Amino acid sequence: MKFSCNQQSLSKALNIVSKAVTSRTTIPILKGIRLVVDNNNILKLSASDLDLSIETQLEINAEEPGSIVVSAKLFSDIIRKLPNEDIQITKAEGNSIIIKCLASEFTIVGQPADEFPNISEINEEKKFSIEKDILKDMIKKTSFAASIDESKGIIIGVMIEMEEDSLNMVALDGFRMAITRKAMKNEEKKKIIISARILNEINKIMIENEDNQDVDIVLEDKKALFLIGETKIALRLLEGDFIKYKDILPKEHQCKLTINRAELLNSIERASLLAKEGKNNLIKMSIFRDKLIITSRSEEGTVKEEVFIDKDGTDLDIGFNSKYILDVLKVVNDEEIIMEFNTSVSPCLMKPVEGNAFEYLVLPVRISSN
Amino acid sequence: MKFSCNQQSLSKALNIVSKAVTSRTTIPILKGIRLVVDNNNILKLSASDLDLSIETQLEINAEEPGSIVVSAKLFSDIIRKLPNEDIQITKAEGNSIIIKCLASEFTIVGQPADEFPNISEINEEKKFSIEKDILKDMIKKTSFAASIDESKGIIIGVMIEMEEDSLNMVALDGFRMAITRKAMKNEEKKKIIISARILNEINKIMIENEDNQDVDIVLEDKKALFLIGETKIALRLLEGDFIKYKDILPKEHQCKLTINRAELLNSIERASLLAKEGKNNLIKMSIFRDKLIITSRSEEGTVKEEVFIDKDGTDLDIGFNSKYILDVLKVVNDEEIIMEFNTSVSPCLMKPVEGNAFEYLVLPVRISSN
Repeated sequence: MKFSCNQQSLSKALNIVSKAVTSRTTIPILKGIRLVVDNNNILKLSASDLDLSIETQLEINAEEPGSIVVSAKLFSDIIRKLPNEDIQITKAEGNSIIIKCLASEFTIVGQPADEFPNISEINEEKKFSIEKDILKDMIKKTSFAASIDESKGIIIGVMIEMEEDSLNMVALDGFRMAITRKAMKNEEKKKIIISARILNEINKIMIENEDNQDVDIVLEDKKALFLIGETKIALRLLEGDFIKYKDILPKEHQCKLTINRAELLNSIERASLLAKEGKNNLIKMSIFRDKLIITSRSEEGTVKEEVFIDKDGTDLDIGFNSKYILDVLKVVNDEEIIMEFNTSVSPCLMKPVEGNAFEYLVLPVRISSN
Repeated sequence: MKFSCNQQSLSKALNIVSKAVTSRTTIPILKGIRLVVDNNNILKLSASDLDLSIETQLEINAEEPGSIVVSAKLFSDIIRKLPNEDIQITKAEGNSIIIKCLASEFTIVGQPADEFPNISEINEEKKFSIEKDILKDMIKKTSFAASIDESKGIIIGVMIEMEEDSLNMVALDGFRMAITRKAMKNEEKKKIIISARILNEINKIMIENEDNQDVDIVLEDKKALFLIGETKIALRLLEGDFIKYKDILPKEHQCKLTINRAELLNSIERASLLAKEGKNNLIKMSIFRDKLIITSRSEEGTVKEEVFIDKDGTDLDIGFNSKYILDVLKVVNDEEIIMEFNTSVSPCLMKPVEGNAFEYLVLPVRISSN
């Protein structure tokens, strides 16, 4: 293997595939990145943690084909620190490679590429496309609500649901649920579940990828493939029954508020300053006439925040873990949002003023009456 | 106590005095900031960790004089999160204060101000001045070399030495020594030692303070006072004998290099990638003809970097902990610097091509002959 390429391009490609390298693995070769040069002036880079595999490629000047696996961290660190010049990489004896750039010369020990797991082939013919910005936005608005507790099973995943005329994503963790929807014709109905962690990595790759091409997605029974520019992401789907989310969405409400999102966000952030220690960020919301009054108290003091609302329905006192409300207000961009309530022990529904692009359900926290 | 003021101005002042608040104290009142309003529309804020006391002030609209101590963290967090509007602060019953701003109202518990330690009075008449930029630069170029190990005694400090015609600062930690000098007429000779940690806090305050006024300094036997704009910083000097640093500066050299600072910095940073684990960042420098060859090796591989030099003297092989060389190259701005060597077991001296504004002494690490 012998090739030369530009430092910046190689560094970018390494940054992409490194997202599939886990430090937690007990299989040494999975801490590596596989480099493959064939005869057509293309370098393929791949990495895998078995659940997630990423492959990307870049144009190089190939002199000799070949392949090797090198330490993801060390190789990326070296390439990143080299000047933005031409880099020559040559495979040497004993599975090592020599990296030369101007007056720098590194020799690093690698491993034979044939021990690297093969990234599963997926039939790319049955693919469908989705606009990159829509996919980014839907992931941002749902993945944060999935559980981060690996022991919780299927709810560490985001359900992606293709219905006849919409694409939906749903995530929940037992305290809140996030739903996003996008009108879209789908040939066949399908439900898959992808780990929120992996979706977040896919989102980072989409954000770093500058071109605005659509993302192609191929779904199989147990696997999915995302194609983003020159990058292929293969992942294992999560298996299990996802909650029938439509059944738990409240059908009616006793009280409906229209409220300025930024004002509510700022008020709750301030109220949370006194809701931090050992109290599950407890804030109390009192809907009273044309105001939402947010209060909190700790040993250090008390706070009262007032936000004007447009109200339809009855007054109500209800408590929340402020984090769950803030998470929603931070990912949504709408100027105003709707909050719907029933009783002080039933969940609050947050949604846009018009349409159904998102719905968030947040469970309340029981508050004492004073 | 009752006053109103602008949110931004108050937040800035809190940010300054908070630098004297330590979380490690066992004296609860020292986690607070004292607010004092007298009759002249000035709010004085002060904080102290006993070694370091900071006081600053801002113009307010005073309605009633008074004083209180409030939690530095909570009060600063609240003020920072409020909108950039007028804030009204009123002392209420039981040493609490009420903070109002638009539709926000906080009540936080404070402590009586009379329990707060008095910031020692220093006679401000005997002060001398120094240009802010010079002081900032000298602190940046020396304080990093002081020991961070509190058990090491006096070397956690930076010695500030006033000689007849220069101001010098010296810091060392047993592995390296930093000296900076600035030509300046001083009426009396003096040596004081200030904790590097405190000098770094003073540096931050100078960086945040936008006006370019000179800094006034008052020295007493056991105390010093720095006056930066509206801010007074009182500190306890460290007591003890500082090393006679002039005695350990080498008087001659066998080899003198003139070298491009940025090139050397980049080369050593890359070489350090293979010098990380359990090896004290060991790099080897070989001065050979017109080149400085930097090498390092680990189980993962080897690296060789070459930098062109202008050499006067003999060739030499010498080892270093790369961190100590990098620390110097990062704080210095010169395009080229001088490195002087004697033997492979004697320290290297780094200094400017002209003048004596800085000198750095770095001890070598013994290397095996291969």
